Amino acid sequence: MIKVKVYVTLKAGVLDPQGKAIEQALEAMDVNNVEGMRVGKYMEFHLEPEKGQSVDEQVTHMCEQLLSNPVIEDYRYETEEVITP
Amino acid sequence: MIKVKVYVTLKAGVLDPQGKAIEQALEAMDVNNVEGMRVGKYMEFHLEPEKGQSVDEQVTHMCEQLLSNPVIEDYRYETEEVITP
Repeated sequence: MIKVKVYVTLKAGVLDPQGKAIEQALEAMDVNNVEGMRVGKYMEFHLEPEKGQSVDEQVTHMCEQLLSNPVIEDYRYETEEVITP
Repeated sequence: MIKVKVYVTLKAGVLDPQGKAIEQALEAMDVNNVEGMRVGKYMEFHLEPEKGQSVDEQVTHMCEQLLSNPVIEDYRYETEEVITP
């Protein structure tokens, strides 16, 4: 069993209205020393490896077809083996 | 300047309808070896440290007051110093 963590972020240059809203909310809280707030998604799941396909191939397929929008978003992921007794 | 990365995840046991929707979409794509999909938020920003307050204090304050909902969400964060020439 593999634990996969996927991070999806907006590409540089893509407007991030959610990040801007957070910056404004922080200013309203008197926090004025934050800049460049960017909001993305974080997903984690367990993957049972399938024969004939590498984990990288599978996760890349999922990220490109469903978990991210490749036009405006980048993704990266980490995998770790889970040892179940 | 400090670069901060914040990860906000639903607490264990809190229903994650977005994660369930992704699992169903994956099944519709013939990906049947994924389980326990959980969706969270990922935020990154730059922080200019303020005198008289540690970075940890500041980030904890922001996370608890704005970036996460402590009733149903957990957060963790990483900080790294950014050296600007």
